[in-house]
Amino acid sequence: MNRKMIINTLGRIILIESVLMFIPFMISAGYGEWNAAVSFGITALAAALAGFLLVRITANHDKGIHAREGFAIAAFSWVIMSMIGAVPLFASGEFPTYIDSLFEIVSGFTTTGASVARDIGALSHGILFWRSFTHWIGGMGVLVLMMAIFPDDSGRSIYIMRAEMPGPVVDKIVPKVRNTAKILYLIYIVLTAAEVVMLLFGGMDLFESLVHSMGTAGTGGFGIRGDSIGSYSPYCQWVIAVFMLLFGMNFNLYYLVIAGKIRNALRSEEMHVYLGIFVVSAVIVSVNVSRVYSTFGDVVRHSVFQVASIYTTTGFSTVDFNQWPELSKSILVVLMCIGGCAGSTAGGLKVSRVILIIKGIGSEIKHLLHPRSITRGTFEGRAISKELRSGVNSYFALYILVFAVSFVIISFEPFGFETNATAVIACMNNIGPGLAAVGPAAGYYDYSGFSKIILSVGMLMGRLELYPIILAVASIGRRNVRSSGTDRKKRPVRMDD
Amino acid sequence: MNRKMIINTLGRIILIESVLMFIPFMISAGYGEWNAAVSFGITALAAALAGFLLVRITANHDKGIHAREGFAIAAFSWVIMSMIGAVPLFASGEFPTYIDSLFEIVSGFTTTGASVARDIGALSHGILFWRSFTHWIGGMGVLVLMMAIFPDDSGRSIYIMRAEMPGPVVDKIVPKVRNTAKILYLIYIVLTAAEVVMLLFGGMDLFESLVHSMGTAGTGGFGIRGDSIGSYSPYCQWVIAVFMLLFGMNFNLYYLVIAGKIRNALRSEEMHVYLGIFVVSAVIVSVNVSRVYSTFGDVVRHSVFQVASIYTTTGFSTVDFNQWPELSKSILVVLMCIGGCAGSTAGGLKVSRVILIIKGIGSEIKHLLHPRSITRGTFEGRAISKELRSGVNSYFALYILVFAVSFVIISFEPFGFETNATAVIACMNNIGPGLAAVGPAAGYYDYSGFSKIILSVGMLMGRLELYPIILAVASIGRRNVRSSGTDRKKRPVRMDD
Repeated sequence: MNRKMIINTLGRIILIESVLMFIPFMISAGYGEWNAAVSFGITALAAALAGFLLVRITANHDKGIHAREGFAIAAFSWVIMSMIGAVPLFASGEFPTYIDSLFEIVSGFTTTGASVARDIGALSHGILFWRSFTHWIGGMGVLVLMMAIFPDDSGRSIYIMRAEMPGPVVDKIVPKVRNTAKILYLIYIVLTAAEVVMLLFGGMDLFESLVHSMGTAGTGGFGIRGDSIGSYSPYCQWVIAVFMLLFGMNFNLYYLVIAGKIRNALRSEEMHVYLGIFVVSAVIVSVNVSRVYSTFGDVVRHSVFQVASIYTTTGFSTVDFNQWPELSKSILVVLMCIGGCAGSTAGGLKVSRVILIIKGIGSEIKHLLHPRSITRGTFEGRAISKELRSGVNSYFALYILVFAVSFVIISFEPFGFETNATAVIACMNNIGPGLAAVGPAAGYYDYSGFSKIILSVGMLMGRLELYPIILAVASIGRRNVRSSGTDRKKRPVRMDD
Repeated sequence: MNRKMIINTLGRIILIESVLMFIPFMISAGYGEWNAAVSFGITALAAALAGFLLVRITANHDKGIHAREGFAIAAFSWVIMSMIGAVPLFASGEFPTYIDSLFEIVSGFTTTGASVARDIGALSHGILFWRSFTHWIGGMGVLVLMMAIFPDDSGRSIYIMRAEMPGPVVDKIVPKVRNTAKILYLIYIVLTAAEVVMLLFGGMDLFESLVHSMGTAGTGGFGIRGDSIGSYSPYCQWVIAVFMLLFGMNFNLYYLVIAGKIRNALRSEEMHVYLGIFVVSAVIVSVNVSRVYSTFGDVVRHSVFQVASIYTTTGFSTVDFNQWPELSKSILVVLMCIGGCAGSTAGGLKVSRVILIIKGIGSEIKHLLHPRSITRGTFEGRAISKELRSGVNSYFALYILVFAVSFVIISFEPFGFETNATAVIACMNNIGPGLAAVGPAAGYYDYSGFSKIILSVGMLMGRLELYPIILAVASIGRRNVRSSGTDRKKRPVRMDD
């Protein structure tokens, strides 16, 4: 394990976070919210100092890197970033405990949007902005941001990118990782800005449109009102619905469009399935809730909004879908697990994995009928490799296993099957609201501190796609058992790109 | 598709069923329950005639067989056997509709034990016996019974056995399939008889001990009282608990013991994990329910009984575990999905599959850390082949997919998340009782006819391990689209053993 490099990277992440925290500091100061402003200011300064020192003392680190380091960097940066980001929430006195603050900020960075705030309306502007800003940073990833900012002086990039970016296969759009990161953030910024402008046209003020656009962009879901998007105009609701769907698509497609390869983008198998599932679900839900709302327009708008919000794992709501008929609720729960496309800011299993899993079942059935035939089929025009298929299957199995274990652990809570099951589903898939006592009209405030930590781990597992967190926990557990000295003997792989 | 052979085998199955139905006919007649007796008598005679004719007109069938035929035979025999077995329940007037009767008998043959009878105490002895007898037949399998009875004049045996027997790998215990089938039924009969004797000692009358022993042997769970085993003596409850655990073990182990290879039997990896999971679950549940019951003995007995019953997918109960704390209920739900050992009469995923899935995740993680290493590990002392691993993973993915689809389909019912989710889990894994409105103190009677059919299909899928039913449905759906004539050109594999 190349510890110096890991610590060096963590230092950079802390530095970046301290700079980012300057924005909510300014906003708090601008609104005269001094408690919050002082909290952000002191945390940012302390983080800057710590980050600077960490980077300095590890400046001469060995540049060799394995996959193992990539996972460790992803896991530890996300944990540390959340631990630092939570400080102002607690220090400002707006959240009662540090665990509550940590839950809220993990929920922010992982783009979950599950809240422990009992009264969102009582939070200060600075804190509200920071919550939504963490969505925006976490959506594309802080490590991707780091790669876009710092010159690429080591081979760490592709390993880190693989560990942080969602989806079964992570590839660079352009040969250099740094340029890929820049392009992704550029697309991200342009799309977010477009939503801000559209929402300003709808009558939101600048603060509101910024916060909601960042929540949409990261598919996060933190809002600033108790009823989420419910009291905004139908125009704003439609704008947000459309942008949620846009942010749930693979960003590679936008790059293809920019690069003039519109035909290639339109041929994406994942996009077809993504939109197909969306349309079918929205139609069924519309029919199912047709008697709940008085006009056809309301029925369609609320159905489309809720389906888009849950499917893209955003978690905004215009109505309390916990009151909907069972069929619609069940469809929403299944959509929570599917999630958006690989390479988007959405959580969940990802549409591409679901496609690969179903194709895998298809070839297994063919193999059962004709034992000598081995057909693995194609995905996005390429043959599905053995490694990809077995990787996706193992991921899915691990995903179900993590769900089952988390569900059993938090079920010592007295909330009942539906609440506990959907709380785990909504956190692991980075949605936010679940059903029953964690439905859109309620929150996670009644869970114990222990369960909040379990659910936070679930959110991090979901955002980083299981392996980084599991390996980090396993390596901490193993450290005392055996020396890690053997690792050093292996020749590190260097990648300079 | 060798249709003649399929029809010939179905004819034999119908013949066997008509003979088996003679027993409940005698019992009904003996108790003077003439409605039931006449229903059984006429159904048995009609079935005997139909079976005879089908065997006769297809006597000169081609003996070639593919895996495809094995699946088709398994799927269609189980459906037809259930359709015939349900007739007396409806004809005797004891069940209000034919769909109710069909649900009850599918639940019987698949060893589920989910009931739509509102008042079990009102059912006649003949019907009660038949319900439990179907557990016993379905537990080991009617096709295995057929192989034990009829001389093995074709190569069909191993394909059919693979399609009917549960577990990721089905092997013959001895070289000849017919002898394997005979040995399995012999062990089955001896163990069942042992339980009957033990229960007679506990004060049950012959009818009661027969019915409960058959329900235990098949890991079915139909009882004869509204509170299942609740009002029997602690001695009887302990006897049934122990036998449930015995019937949840791989029958190959009993053969090894008989053959004097006790050491080999004791080395079984699956058995160790099976008993380990049982002990851990029983201890946690005992601690969790320790305040619910007044004495230590009651706490241990009820915990052990319920855990054994749910884990082995039997479904008997001594208390209404739906009233237990959430943690215990969650553990029971997870145990429902794991199920007993491969090669037992239990349902669920099977312990061996769970072991293989977890080992698969382990090697995937190793592969992620060291991309050049490929370690698949061993199971029961043998290296895990690529085919086995990918087969188990695909099975698991399909299992989750079938669960999700069934859950969405039946959620148009107004029963809520917990009831619908656990109803599907309890049916697919062949348990019987779920939680909430389908808990042990309630039943499936309030579900609509449509949902009862969906749940019945789920039970059959669970018992036959998904593929036979899915292939049968797919082949029916495809028949009109394309001619199946091409199949005939392929050279059939002959297996004479």
